[in-house]
Amino acid sequence: MTRLTLAVDAMGGDFGPCVTVPAALQALASHSQLVLLLVGDPDIISSFLAKADSSLLGRVQVIPAESVIASDARPSQAIRNSRGSSMRVALELVKEGKAQACVSAGNTGALMGLAKLLLKPLDGIDRPALMTVLPHQQHGKTVVLDLGANVDSDSAMLVQFAVMGSVMAEEVLEIIQPRVALLNIGQEETKGLETIRAASTVLRASPHINYIGYLEGNDLLTGKTDVLVCDGFVGNVTLKTMEGVVRMFLSLLRSSGEGKKRAWWLKLLGRWVQKRLAKRFGHLNPDQYNGACLLGLRGTVIKSHGAANQRAFAVAIEQAEQAVRRQVPERIAARLDAVLARSDKA
Amino acid sequence: MTRLTLAVDAMGGDFGPCVTVPAALQALASHSQLVLLLVGDPDIISSFLAKADSSLLGRVQVIPAESVIASDARPSQAIRNSRGSSMRVALELVKEGKAQACVSAGNTGALMGLAKLLLKPLDGIDRPALMTVLPHQQHGKTVVLDLGANVDSDSAMLVQFAVMGSVMAEEVLEIIQPRVALLNIGQEETKGLETIRAASTVLRASPHINYIGYLEGNDLLTGKTDVLVCDGFVGNVTLKTMEGVVRMFLSLLRSSGEGKKRAWWLKLLGRWVQKRLAKRFGHLNPDQYNGACLLGLRGTVIKSHGAANQRAFAVAIEQAEQAVRRQVPERIAARLDAVLARSDKA
Repeated sequence: MTRLTLAVDAMGGDFGPCVTVPAALQALASHSQLVLLLVGDPDIISSFLAKADSSLLGRVQVIPAESVIASDARPSQAIRNSRGSSMRVALELVKEGKAQACVSAGNTGALMGLAKLLLKPLDGIDRPALMTVLPHQQHGKTVVLDLGANVDSDSAMLVQFAVMGSVMAEEVLEIIQPRVALLNIGQEETKGLETIRAASTVLRASPHINYIGYLEGNDLLTGKTDVLVCDGFVGNVTLKTMEGVVRMFLSLLRSSGEGKKRAWWLKLLGRWVQKRLAKRFGHLNPDQYNGACLLGLRGTVIKSHGAANQRAFAVAIEQAEQAVRRQVPERIAARLDAVLARSDKA
Repeated sequence: MTRLTLAVDAMGGDFGPCVTVPAALQALASHSQLVLLLVGDPDIISSFLAKADSSLLGRVQVIPAESVIASDARPSQAIRNSRGSSMRVALELVKEGKAQACVSAGNTGALMGLAKLLLKPLDGIDRPALMTVLPHQQHGKTVVLDLGANVDSDSAMLVQFAVMGSVMAEEVLEIIQPRVALLNIGQEETKGLETIRAASTVLRASPHINYIGYLEGNDLLTGKTDVLVCDGFVGNVTLKTMEGVVRMFLSLLRSSGEGKKRAWWLKLLGRWVQKRLAKRFGHLNPDQYNGACLLGLRGTVIKSHGAANQRAFAVAIEQAEQAVRRQVPERIAARLDAVLARSDKA
């Protein structure tokens, strides 16, 4: 494998460098071909690098940035004042070819806007979408998008998301003719919002998409589809709802029976069974699939959860590494070209 | 306690009388003061009543209805052709004062439209909303609405939902000054859809609502609010996502370890721990709180899940009984009067 350089917005997210820098070191330790450019306040970043293994430090470079975009900043305003910010500098490194992808846990709206501005959308894409790959009940995976890059989506955007999701499932998950569904509030054609119904009509007529119709929220993890498409508001709420419920279950599993007086052997056995259960459900732990990919750009951008811990942010860095190795933007571009060309002829 | 008569749309839902009639008998067995009017095809209903305990049959009456509104019918069309349908006849029984509430697992849009048409909204309410009470992590409960009565909601409707939800929490859950939050995709004021931000501004200025701001999907079950308000599309997707995840966990808990070769005592112990866990999570089982209340009408209407099983539909009937005993519509009307009068003066 060849060397691979990623730019990390070290200042973004709820915790900033105290999570991003240790996570970066963790990712470097497990990927020997990785080089990371840590963008942000050099003094703060260096303080977290001080105790790091010297063998890793050879693959780290600190890139200074003067400011940080606040998580609660209004995106339009944040973008106007973004010059010199860690997020923008990290994206510029990708634009200039100095890094192959960028990872940030910062303000989603600003990241989306700046990435579009600096890296430009692919031909045929109006607005990029945030995509993640969720594990499902049948031990497979489902591509879900948009997860909040766009607050509001029209039917043309939903169709573009479907094309991008379908390409992801085919090229990255290696699923032949992946099934594509729209998230709706009923399975009947008459249900839901007008934009969804319009997108459904277009998708049903497209020979390039294996469109299977509507699915409801309860089918998110059932594996009935390979690609699930929704607008960014609904996608964000859905994903966070799922994560909230999963986290609650995992924490209840861990705490179940604690603090009660019981024979030691019962306690031990209880813990043993719980550990097995926790392991069984572990693949659903949101930390394990942190990092949503901003699809539809001429470059790779990974958005981490703002509240990501070290482990979760390290996963986001690995997602970026994977996306670069799998040439996600190039593959989507090639497929879009083909689909759009064929659609024009049709 | 005095007698209480409910109208049951026996034909509605995915399974019709083979679920609704046994569920009705189950509810009658546990509530000695309950009388049920089962509306639908008399032959089919009677066939399911044939083996029933004769002591219960004295409190059942079959009300004939010629037709059924299909689950996948377009609501507008279904309402136009609704005369004589089991859903409409059940609602008419409420309108005529022959029943105190109506329960249906049928077409949500049609139920919402017909209920509005026949029972009329309360003063100050544009459109009724579907509300449910979810158990949360802190062992309390959260009122959530709208769950899909309205596909699209403007900011005025969200404010009305907030008032109704607040009254429900105060009057039924007996929470003093219940906290009210709007579901959004970020906690900052600048986040989300324009309609939500506009509703937030109104609620923040209202002295009658203890408005605490935005919450995200992952807070659905954390107990950070007593009332969670969203539009019907998002509410429906969110609730179904949560139910899907909970059902998956419960089924994994039940099946965990099955089929593996293991010493009998390990199997027994494993089962024992799993039973305890299932019990611990049991209050989250969607079947336990089936039945959403259509709030904002001059009468009580309970919408059951279309896919409800016998146990779940019996719970929906009990919800109707509770709502009538607690005089939900009257209490909301009284509080709305007060809030609206005070708002006018303000």
